Amino acid sequence: MFNKRVKIKELLTWTPEGQQVTVMGWVRTFRNNQFVALNDGSTNTNLQVVLPLNSFDDALLRRVTTSASLKVTGTLVPSQGKGQQQELQATELEILGDSDAEKYPLQLKNRPSLEFLREKAHLRFRTNTFGSVFRVRHALAFAIHKFFHERGFLYLHTPVITASDAEGAGEMFRVTTLPFDGAPRNEDGSINFKEDFFGRATNLTVSGQLEGELGATAFGEIYTFGPTFRAENSNTTRHLAEFWMIEPEMAFCDLEDNMNLAEDFIKYIIGFALENNREDIEFLDSRLKEEEKSLPADKRSEMGLIEKLDFVVNNKFERITYTEAIEILLQSPAYKKKKFQYEVKWGIDMQSEHERYLVEKHFKKPVIVTNYPKDIKAFYMRLNDDGKTVDAMDILAPGIGEIVGGSQREERLDKLESRMAEMHIPTEELWWYLDTRRFGTVPHAGFGLGFERMVQFVTGMGNIRDVIAFPRTPKSAEF
Amino acid sequence: MFNKRVKIKELLTWTPEGQQVTVMGWVRTFRNNQFVALNDGSTNTNLQVVLPLNSFDDALLRRVTTSASLKVTGTLVPSQGKGQQQELQATELEILGDSDAEKYPLQLKNRPSLEFLREKAHLRFRTNTFGSVFRVRHALAFAIHKFFHERGFLYLHTPVITASDAEGAGEMFRVTTLPFDGAPRNEDGSINFKEDFFGRATNLTVSGQLEGELGATAFGEIYTFGPTFRAENSNTTRHLAEFWMIEPEMAFCDLEDNMNLAEDFIKYIIGFALENNREDIEFLDSRLKEEEKSLPADKRSEMGLIEKLDFVVNNKFERITYTEAIEILLQSPAYKKKKFQYEVKWGIDMQSEHERYLVEKHFKKPVIVTNYPKDIKAFYMRLNDDGKTVDAMDILAPGIGEIVGGSQREERLDKLESRMAEMHIPTEELWWYLDTRRFGTVPHAGFGLGFERMVQFVTGMGNIRDVIAFPRTPKSAEF
Repeated sequence: MFNKRVKIKELLTWTPEGQQVTVMGWVRTFRNNQFVALNDGSTNTNLQVVLPLNSFDDALLRRVTTSASLKVTGTLVPSQGKGQQQELQATELEILGDSDAEKYPLQLKNRPSLEFLREKAHLRFRTNTFGSVFRVRHALAFAIHKFFHERGFLYLHTPVITASDAEGAGEMFRVTTLPFDGAPRNEDGSINFKEDFFGRATNLTVSGQLEGELGATAFGEIYTFGPTFRAENSNTTRHLAEFWMIEPEMAFCDLEDNMNLAEDFIKYIIGFALENNREDIEFLDSRLKEEEKSLPADKRSEMGLIEKLDFVVNNKFERITYTEAIEILLQSPAYKKKKFQYEVKWGIDMQSEHERYLVEKHFKKPVIVTNYPKDIKAFYMRLNDDGKTVDAMDILAPGIGEIVGGSQREERLDKLESRMAEMHIPTEELWWYLDTRRFGTVPHAGFGLGFERMVQFVTGMGNIRDVIAFPRTPKSAEF
Repeated sequence: MFNKRVKIKELLTWTPEGQQVTVMGWVRTFRNNQFVALNDGSTNTNLQVVLPLNSFDDALLRRVTTSASLKVTGTLVPSQGKGQQQELQATELEILGDSDAEKYPLQLKNRPSLEFLREKAHLRFRTNTFGSVFRVRHALAFAIHKFFHERGFLYLHTPVITASDAEGAGEMFRVTTLPFDGAPRNEDGSINFKEDFFGRATNLTVSGQLEGELGATAFGEIYTFGPTFRAENSNTTRHLAEFWMIEPEMAFCDLEDNMNLAEDFIKYIIGFALENNREDIEFLDSRLKEEEKSLPADKRSEMGLIEKLDFVVNNKFERITYTEAIEILLQSPAYKKKKFQYEVKWGIDMQSEHERYLVEKHFKKPVIVTNYPKDIKAFYMRLNDDGKTVDAMDILAPGIGEIVGGSQREERLDKLESRMAEMHIPTEELWWYLDTRRFGTVPHAGFGLGFERMVQFVTGMGNIRDVIAFPRTPKSAEF
């Protein structure tokens, strides 16, 4: 048994009183041939390890370099220095793995940029920024499972490989085992996908919602939390080709229940991170302030990161209809001064500039917009009595835009079928989806939350590629 | 706000004393024009709803059919009948959704087979068997996150789309946006994958382990829990083309630490399900006994389901080396009577019949086999000093075979590189993997658990297609 170490995060909670203890970790810095800042990934706070003068060979000490891994046994004592309560007076020191300081890619002296670190995604976890980002990401993921579990939702794993291309949520990746050369052909020359692995053409899923509805109409309340895909050539700070999505789906639920749940959910998971990862979020708060110093004053965030998160947790989200939103935009100084690039009128799919105006300038808090025109929304959203809007809801968040998209679903078979016909969605392919409306249909609703956008929101990271371990984007699938 | 119901699972814990309450759910049965067994998916136990004689229109009562959805408000009172503590005396009844009894695919009278239900995977959730299976699946998934979270492991989302095909764990699915007709070509006629979405050929991952190691060597301890894929034409009761896998990876960890963790882990998640889903597991226990009645006595399980699970939780797993395992097989009556179909000698990759002999006949409990011959194991496993075995460990479970595969990883750069050269694994492609051995390498280890096999083990379901919502298998990707 090798692992008899104490994690540094735990050790830092101890009152130092001469305990004998073993720690293991990587060297962050080594000063004065005596003071090692040791980090094991459990926290950004390094443990100060003191190598008493003349206790260890010079040859050994020369191997204490940045990112070398050490096993240290020693005595935990109150620290003499500033900045920490305790330090470890080493009595035994073992180099587990050397690190050639000349070759180590992350030189702390010239602080590496986020762009540079993206190229070194296999090592960026060892920096304070990414340490905090990924610990917060973990906390949010756990909070999501905890939230739904406590409310009796069932975690449903919907399929990643799907033959359904009916939803039209976006461009898809083909999944195949057919060779490009000599792929089997039908008589008319088209590819014979009956010979493909699944006996049909298959793609990577863009959403688990339709399958989620099958679960909700049996278990009552389910959620998915899995990878989803978009083969869109979008090189932005908000898009990934592979990202994780959370999609709860609730039977016996209308749009208001749906909004209530979504708001509770967002507040719960942010609150969980604030409580459990305070130190990480404080670090990210400072990082953001630092980063924004180089911006002109009017481009800086109005609130600090923690201030913003506290604000979201403690304030009721504004709830307005799409029609009200358009009205606000039309009455706005920005509109009157022709500051919007895109047209504003009833029926438009609001652009980022419009959403940001509503959230950041007008209401200055998260906004839930409901009752969108049916023509800009998906076929499965419940048609309102006015015949032109659907029971959709989008949640818009400051600095990030749309973070949740949801709706009450159309549970009435006849209305759903005529909507599908209007939108040229083949009903035969979705026979199983329609069956839920044939046999004991119920009012139901759900929403989708893009996990990485939520991680961006909570960590304050500007680029979505910096909140997922190994981002998949156009022309990039390294690691 | 529509959802003011009480979930039936919760209601059944109440002491009935005339509470006014609203429930919603689907009709399981309707007897004597008076007694509705209502189910909302929160539990297999139905709520008895009593529709007092002459209280409701005949036209309304005729719509109370199997799988119709109801909203019922009434008074919770002690039950007059047998089999339940409380019943709901309905005062208001609303049909939320009709269900045409003639057309409803799941007729309870002629008990549908598991095979038949697989074709109706969108409705099988509404049966007792699949209700229990998927609630247990949920409990196991939650227990997995809880176990690792409590121990300070970080949940790492490793990529699903990967350019790495170096691990050689199995056949892969290609992911592409190139068209079959007119795909871009290089001068030599081969497909020009530089023009593909990611600028290179990409596949669906077979394992997140290599990326997991990158996380472990920064955060100390991580786990993955995500979908993995095999494009193998295996039509068995144990194989899926898409399945979920859990892969913890721990720095500062040797094979013994790894075995200890895996054993604790398995016991914890089974214990969690036994405690939190007792009723479901009791149902599955009876179901299995019923199913096995049709088998000849010697084909039946020696233990009932609960007995087996209790046994696993309460007994230490046997730990033997591969060499000892081969010795036991060679000394076995089965071998001497030539009952094994496949050869037994040092160096073989043990077949299912061998593993089952060890687990079910010889030790009669889970067995951890360690120190396998290097030639039958992956390149990243740590070479032992004997030069012919590696620090691998497989956990074999009764009735299911290999449920965990893991190892201490080769942390020594020179040994890893020479092993990769021997096995013709291109080191250039895995530069990032090798970097962890260049900069502060540490002893580390990990394992993989196939989630669906674990769900099979805990639910006693014989076919892996019955423990995942929408199975993906050769020639099948429905729903």
